Amino acid sequence: MRELLKLTEGKNIICFTGGLPDPQVFPKRELAEVASYVIEELGDRALQYGPTKGITEFRETLKRFLMNKGVKIESDDDIIVTTGSQQALDLISRLLINPGDTIMVELPTYLAALNAFKSSEPNIVPIPMDENGMRTDALEEEVKKLKRNGARIKFIYTIPVAHNPTGITMSIERKKHLLDIASENDLLIIEDDPYSYFVYDEGIDVTPLKTLDKEGRVIYLSTLSKILAPGLRLGWVLGNGVLVDYIERAKQSADLHTSTLNQFIAMEAIKRGIVDRTIVKAKEVYKVKRDVMIDALEKYMVKGTKWVKPVGGLFMLIWLPSESIDTKKLLPEAIKEGVAYVPGAAFFANGSGQNTIRLNFSYPKPEEIVEGIRILGNLIKRKLNSN
Amino acid sequence: MRELLKLTEGKNIICFTGGLPDPQVFPKRELAEVASYVIEELGDRALQYGPTKGITEFRETLKRFLMNKGVKIESDDDIIVTTGSQQALDLISRLLINPGDTIMVELPTYLAALNAFKSSEPNIVPIPMDENGMRTDALEEEVKKLKRNGARIKFIYTIPVAHNPTGITMSIERKKHLLDIASENDLLIIEDDPYSYFVYDEGIDVTPLKTLDKEGRVIYLSTLSKILAPGLRLGWVLGNGVLVDYIERAKQSADLHTSTLNQFIAMEAIKRGIVDRTIVKAKEVYKVKRDVMIDALEKYMVKGTKWVKPVGGLFMLIWLPSESIDTKKLLPEAIKEGVAYVPGAAFFANGSGQNTIRLNFSYPKPEEIVEGIRILGNLIKRKLNSN
Repeated sequence: MRELLKLTEGKNIICFTGGLPDPQVFPKRELAEVASYVIEELGDRALQYGPTKGITEFRETLKRFLMNKGVKIESDDDIIVTTGSQQALDLISRLLINPGDTIMVELPTYLAALNAFKSSEPNIVPIPMDENGMRTDALEEEVKKLKRNGARIKFIYTIPVAHNPTGITMSIERKKHLLDIASENDLLIIEDDPYSYFVYDEGIDVTPLKTLDKEGRVIYLSTLSKILAPGLRLGWVLGNGVLVDYIERAKQSADLHTSTLNQFIAMEAIKRGIVDRTIVKAKEVYKVKRDVMIDALEKYMVKGTKWVKPVGGLFMLIWLPSESIDTKKLLPEAIKEGVAYVPGAAFFANGSGQNTIRLNFSYPKPEEIVEGIRILGNLIKRKLNSN
Repeated sequence: MRELLKLTEGKNIICFTGGLPDPQVFPKRELAEVASYVIEELGDRALQYGPTKGITEFRETLKRFLMNKGVKIESDDDIIVTTGSQQALDLISRLLINPGDTIMVELPTYLAALNAFKSSEPNIVPIPMDENGMRTDALEEEVKKLKRNGARIKFIYTIPVAHNPTGITMSIERKKHLLDIASENDLLIIEDDPYSYFVYDEGIDVTPLKTLDKEGRVIYLSTLSKILAPGLRLGWVLGNGVLVDYIERAKQSADLHTSTLNQFIAMEAIKRGIVDRTIVKAKEVYKVKRDVMIDALEKYMVKGTKWVKPVGGLFMLIWLPSESIDTKKLLPEAIKEGVAYVPGAAFFANGSGQNTIRLNFSYPKPEEIVEGIRILGNLIKRKLNSN
């Protein structure tokens, strides 16, 4: 992706690439006030070193925020603040995975999670998805097979709501089945949940696995990157206290602690309702953009192209109707015509997905979305016809 | 140290423990203005995701800042922003050390660096120090011996100015000798330099190894933690561009990037001269405290206790005159009497140093320093008499 971004630098390109919030959603004036207040009034602490787990009051504020959003917190749970969710993925990977251990992920799954896991050299087993999320029937079968072969399965990693890259949301039945499988086989689940706080459609069940879990098997990750500002680099891990203590030790040697200033700013932003207001605004803005993208896809994409309409989040994945198109090879041409995207294959742990494209709809303007999809649709049509 | 700090929680204890800046040195009003400006005027970028290496303008600002302070930057050098120096140590350790590799450190050396290195399971060879810094004659001999035995020496880690924990500064002759040894044996040097920007005494040569290096062997680490605010968690690695590219890749999976907001704040603080003014203030405040501590040690410590007067930094190490005192065992008694410190042994990679104590003089008030050293001196005297 870094190489990708370099290709687009300085050019006037419509970017469907990164998971960037729309800057108009940033509560700039309010955060400016908060930052000024926090530094001037609380600066003795907000500018100082802080505890590795995070500022105690911020951790309490986060817990209340999460409970209000329907995340269940058990008495033996604990929470640790991380430098974005990415650090949570990295620390968990370093802590839990020994080379040769097995982990299970969705097919496809979040690229940067795969990269964090890969540095600990696990055997990665991808489980296919459909429009209801991870196919837990396939998971059950894989777990059986792996156990027969003596694999050490360390965890199942999942993004249940508004999944990255597909935009798919797991059904409640699948969630329950997933938890049953974890229970029967004594497995941990890593639930990565950046998106369930701002789902655009009504009536969607976004109950976290963490809330359904009765056995302390779910390690819950989330972040303020999408509901406040990614520039703060604030994420967290909520889960069994013993595990959180281990993560704390790993974090101490990784970066001592996450910015105290940013923790104080975020705490104040939650308390003043700024985060809740940002969520409302993000929902409005992103819902419109998602709908514009869906409309444009329906209008401009070649027949047989498939996608799932995301109920939230920032992304969707489209499957082109022919395996003959390699979207990675197509990218330089797309960029030449003024559009950038992320080829989907990087998200597929088994090397498939060559005919998929991940599209971000939160960052580009609505008119750019229409124009970008039009360009992309035409390019793909030409390609298919020339094959 | 975490356990230590827990012991002191909520009690009225004089703390010589952490390397905390004195909050009166924080430029609170100015930083409040800067933060407010950065968020309101530059928020579209300052609150957004940023590049893994750091914001380009901030990296340029840092380079100019470093060059003004006498740090030489070569044309094939590059700089990467890290989440504090601690992350730099962690990434370098993950990148360069394979289990069983050899690294060389000062005896004693910075505890958190040792911890970061240890997670990659190296063979750690400590080199003794005297009042002129690392004993490079001993280094030369060790390198020879190690090479004869086929060791893979990955790097020499050093804190040349106002060393943590000893407060010792390396002489220019030793620096040159160290570079010669590195050159003859084709070794990398990790130069950790948090303190040379605020040396209290005149006429001290603080030329960085990086500046003396003619062969691109020195990887230079530093931080804004002591000269602006640790709560920002901003450090950097300056060194050969190829190596920095590798660090960038490791950082991408570790935490994507360091807080963009904090980078923008720090950039503006450097540009407006806030960092330079903070340095002037820190020098004034810490010089007084250092002198108060030295006077108190001379007055209250038992005869035969040894230390080196630090020319800068935040720490000094004292050696008690009898090996019969284990300062780790003494600590609970000291805390009971109202004083906390860090037992020196944790800084000694060979398990020695039981009779040493690391003292921080930047955080406690001058009157606390006098009182704390008086209490500590009396406790030690009683211990020695009862032995």
